[in-house]
Amino acid sequence: MQLLKDRIRKDGIVLPGNILKVGSFLNHQMDIGLFNEMGREFARRFAGVPVTRIVTIEASGIGIACIASQYFSVPVVFAKKSKSKNISGEAFATSVKSYTHNTTYDVMISKEFIRKTDSVLIIDDFLANGCALEGLVDLVGQSGARVAGAGIAIEKGFQDGGSRLRAKGIRIESLAIIDSMEAGKDIVFRDS
Amino acid sequence: MQLLKDRIRKDGIVLPGNILKVGSFLNHQMDIGLFNEMGREFARRFAGVPVTRIVTIEASGIGIACIASQYFSVPVVFAKKSKSKNISGEAFATSVKSYTHNTTYDVMISKEFIRKTDSVLIIDDFLANGCALEGLVDLVGQSGARVAGAGIAIEKGFQDGGSRLRAKGIRIESLAIIDSMEAGKDIVFRDS
Repeated sequence: MQLLKDRIRKDGIVLPGNILKVGSFLNHQMDIGLFNEMGREFARRFAGVPVTRIVTIEASGIGIACIASQYFSVPVVFAKKSKSKNISGEAFATSVKSYTHNTTYDVMISKEFIRKTDSVLIIDDFLANGCALEGLVDLVGQSGARVAGAGIAIEKGFQDGGSRLRAKGIRIESLAIIDSMEAGKDIVFRDS
Repeated sequence: MQLLKDRIRKDGIVLPGNILKVGSFLNHQMDIGLFNEMGREFARRFAGVPVTRIVTIEASGIGIACIASQYFSVPVVFAKKSKSKNISGEAFATSVKSYTHNTTYDVMISKEFIRKTDSVLIIDDFLANGCALEGLVDLVGQSGARVAGAGIAIEKGFQDGGSRLRAKGIRIESLAIIDSMEAGKDIVFRDS
């Protein structure tokens, strides 16, 4: 999606350690006009695919998912990060490894909010090593619902999450895939 | 706001300890059609008040703030919960007491995302003891910006946050104010 790539080039900040800061428009301050264009693009890419529910994960996926849901007219459910392992039997739960924070956290979704008959579109801001997306796919799988696909804003194409999850048959639509980036140099996007 | 009060009566679950569960439409699963009506109502109530930025706090304020921002055409910034006290000089930071979780957490907003010249509308899902809202007012105050007001979905009117913050001169518009609630009994809303 050209609009998003242009915005990343203009306002994204590449730091050593494969860090891309996009807090000025994506995941701290949020440009809702841009989110609307992203939502429209997700709807275009997933046209014809049945979607009954959008699932995301707190915190930075929520804004994108809520705005995008307006183009699908379905409710949004966000997976909650839980501090304790004491998840009651009323929730689907799984563990997600965070390489950024070098820790593992538990996420949960109440069982009542994903039904076996759902066709779920997962939306998130970033896809890098794929652990968060894998966790969401696991939660949806526990419910017996179908994963319709995943809509991602920015994929770090040089990390293996995207290829690993596509190999498992998940349809992933990333609006901007970065093939390489380095502080002080131009970001190289796939297909550009 | 009648629509929200009706929805709370229909789908809210009152538990002992003044707990109101609204996860089926407000803060776990999110009804975006309802959020749009709430956004429209915030815009009606704050008509004529200059708003240049909306500030909320992760995680459950984000969806409401993003949808509401479409009626104000301003960017949204969410305060991040931070695990460490090691906030760099690049952020406004404060501590928030959580009575629900019996803990204190730090929240921060990067200095670049609130300017001295801003007129900030704070949006959140709940107002009870007022600690989260007080923290957000503090963050905005640190920047030198003006707090235009606070738009709250549900205020627990029997807790003192609303009256304490109104006494400080903050204009608070809560879409549903609960005067009393008890498991198994009708919820009593203010002005109804």
